[in-house]
Amino acid sequence: MRPYAEYLQYVNSLIQQSPFKGTPGNLYEPLNYILALGGKRMRPVLTLMGCELFGGNMEDAAQQALAIEVFHNFTLMHDDIMDNAPIRRGQPAVHVKWNEPTAILSGDLMMIKSMDLIRNAAPDKQKPLLDIFNKTACEVCEGQQMDMDFEVENKVNEELYIEMIRLKTAVLLGCSLQAGAIVAGATADAQKAIYSFGEQMGVGFQLMDDILDVYGQSDKVGKQVGGDIISNKKTYLLIKALELAEGENCELLHYWLNEDDFAPEEKVKAVTAVYNNLGVKEIAAAKSEAYFTLAYRLLDTIDIPAENKQYLHEFCEMIRTRIH
Amino acid sequence: MRPYAEYLQYVNSLIQQSPFKGTPGNLYEPLNYILALGGKRMRPVLTLMGCELFGGNMEDAAQQALAIEVFHNFTLMHDDIMDNAPIRRGQPAVHVKWNEPTAILSGDLMMIKSMDLIRNAAPDKQKPLLDIFNKTACEVCEGQQMDMDFEVENKVNEELYIEMIRLKTAVLLGCSLQAGAIVAGATADAQKAIYSFGEQMGVGFQLMDDILDVYGQSDKVGKQVGGDIISNKKTYLLIKALELAEGENCELLHYWLNEDDFAPEEKVKAVTAVYNNLGVKEIAAAKSEAYFTLAYRLLDTIDIPAENKQYLHEFCEMIRTRIH
Repeated sequence: MRPYAEYLQYVNSLIQQSPFKGTPGNLYEPLNYILALGGKRMRPVLTLMGCELFGGNMEDAAQQALAIEVFHNFTLMHDDIMDNAPIRRGQPAVHVKWNEPTAILSGDLMMIKSMDLIRNAAPDKQKPLLDIFNKTACEVCEGQQMDMDFEVENKVNEELYIEMIRLKTAVLLGCSLQAGAIVAGATADAQKAIYSFGEQMGVGFQLMDDILDVYGQSDKVGKQVGGDIISNKKTYLLIKALELAEGENCELLHYWLNEDDFAPEEKVKAVTAVYNNLGVKEIAAAKSEAYFTLAYRLLDTIDIPAENKQYLHEFCEMIRTRIH
Repeated sequence: MRPYAEYLQYVNSLIQQSPFKGTPGNLYEPLNYILALGGKRMRPVLTLMGCELFGGNMEDAAQQALAIEVFHNFTLMHDDIMDNAPIRRGQPAVHVKWNEPTAILSGDLMMIKSMDLIRNAAPDKQKPLLDIFNKTACEVCEGQQMDMDFEVENKVNEELYIEMIRLKTAVLLGCSLQAGAIVAGATADAQKAIYSFGEQMGVGFQLMDDILDVYGQSDKVGKQVGGDIISNKKTYLLIKALELAEGENCELLHYWLNEDDFAPEEKVKAVTAVYNNLGVKEIAAAKSEAYFTLAYRLLDTIDIPAENKQYLHEFCEMIRTRIH
C-alpha cells in the first residue's frame, strides 16, 4: 500500500487522462468541468486502497475508482441545483455556469457513464460490483430526499439524522472500499467488514463535517462559514441544541430560527454562542469519535497485514483532524 | 405473436403489480405516479414483440420491458422540468405536483432502478442488454441536449434535425426491440436489423408527431394544440417552412417568430396558414413515409415468419395513422 498523496495523484492523473468526449459540447463539457474542480477525492482513493488492502494493484481498480468519483460528482451536480447552491469548490456550480436544464441533463449522463465505467471490470466481477453500486446509488438518493424532507420537518431526532447521513454520505464510502475489495478478490466476509468499516467511518466523517461548518476554517475551501446556521440546516449540532436547550438558550435558539431578517454574521455568532453554552460541539465530537472507534474495531476483525491497516488508520486520522 | 392490445394489457398489469416500494415516500411516490399516468406504452410493447418475434415468450422479456418503460418515464420526468411543461398526459407533471428537487431526485432514482430491472435477465444476456441500454441512454441525453441547443440556434437544418430526433426518440425504439430480441436469443445480424427497423420507424414516428402537433386532434390527450408553433419549437415543419418561404410567407413567418405579445390561437392559425401555403405538411408526411418504407425493407431482410412481420406492420400502421 501507499500513502494517501500517491493514490490522490493517481486519481487526478486518471481524471486528466480520460476526459469525457462527445457531442453536443454543452452536454459533455460540464462533466469534465466538475471533475476538474478537484477535491479530496476520498471515494476513489478508498477504492484504490480497498484493492491494495487485499493484495491487488491499484491499476486494477482504476475504472471502478473513476466510476465512483464520476457518480459522486453527478450527485454534487444535481444536489447543487436542489440546494440552490451557486458555488462548488470556490467556482460557479454547473447550473450557474451553464444553466439548470444542462446541469440536470449532464448529471443524468454522468450517472449513466458511471455505470459504464463500473462495467469495465473483469466479467466475473461485474455482477457483485453492480450489485453494491446500484444499491448504494439508490440509498444516496434516499438520503438526499430525507435531507430535503428535514428542511420542512420539525420532528427530526438524532436517530433519524444519523440514518440520513448514513444513506447520504456513509454508504458510498463503504461502497468505495468494497468495490476495491471485489476487484482484489477479497472474501465475502472481508468485503462485508470493509464495507461496514467505511460506513461507520462515513458517519464519523459527516459528524465532523457538521462541526467544521461552524468551527472550522471553511473560508479556505470556498464554503460560507456558518452556512448551516444561516440556512437553519438540521445538523447534528442543531438537533442536539434543540434537545438540550432550556430557558434563555432555548429562547435565543428559537428566536434566530424564526427570524427572517438578519445579518448573517450576527446570527452565526449568536447561534454559535448557544452551541457553546450547551457544549454541543463536544457532544458531536464524542459521537464522531465513537463511530471512528467502531470503524477501527471492524477493521481489526479483517485478516490483512497490520501494515495495511495502518494506512487506513492514517486516512481516518486525516479526515478526523482536518480543519476545513 | 399477439395483437397490440394484448401486449399493452400485459405491460399495464406488470406496472400495476410491481409498484416501487421504499422510503422516503416523497422519493418513491413520484415513480409510481408517473408510471400510472398511462400512455401508449410503445417501448415496452416493442420489447415484448421483439422477444416473441424471434420465438421467445413475452413473459421472458417482462423485466426488460418494464426497465425500458421506467427509463422512458425517467426522461419524461426530467424533460418536463427542462421544458417547463406543467402537464403530462392531462395531469400535473411531477415537478408541479411535488416540486422540482423531488422531480430531479425521483428521476435519478428511476434511472438507477431501470438499470436494476435490466439486470434481472439471465446472466449470459446481461452484458449485451446493458451494452445497448447504456449506449442508448447516453444517446437519448445527447438528443435532448441537441433539442435544447436548437432553441437558441438559428442554423438548424434538416439533417441536424433528423439526427436530433434519431437520438432523442428513435434509438430507444430500436433498443426496445433489440432488448426483446436479445432475450429471445436472436442472432447478432437479426438483432442489428431489428434495431435499425425500430430506429427508422422511430424517425418516421417523430415526424408524424410534428405533423400531429399542428394538424392532429391533440386536445384529446391533454396536450396544447399547436404548442410547437406557440413556443417557436424548431420542428421539421418549421425548418422546412423557413427553408422554402419567400415573399409574403417569409415575412409572415418571421413576424410571428419574433412577436412576443400575441394571442396563442391567432399565432397558431397564422403560422398554420403559412405551412398550408408552402405544403410543408405534405413534405413532412412524405418524409415520414420514406422512413417507414425504409423500416419495412429492413424488416424484410430478417428471417422470421411472415405472420410475425405482419404484427410489426400493424404496429407501424397504428402509429402512422393515429390522429392524436
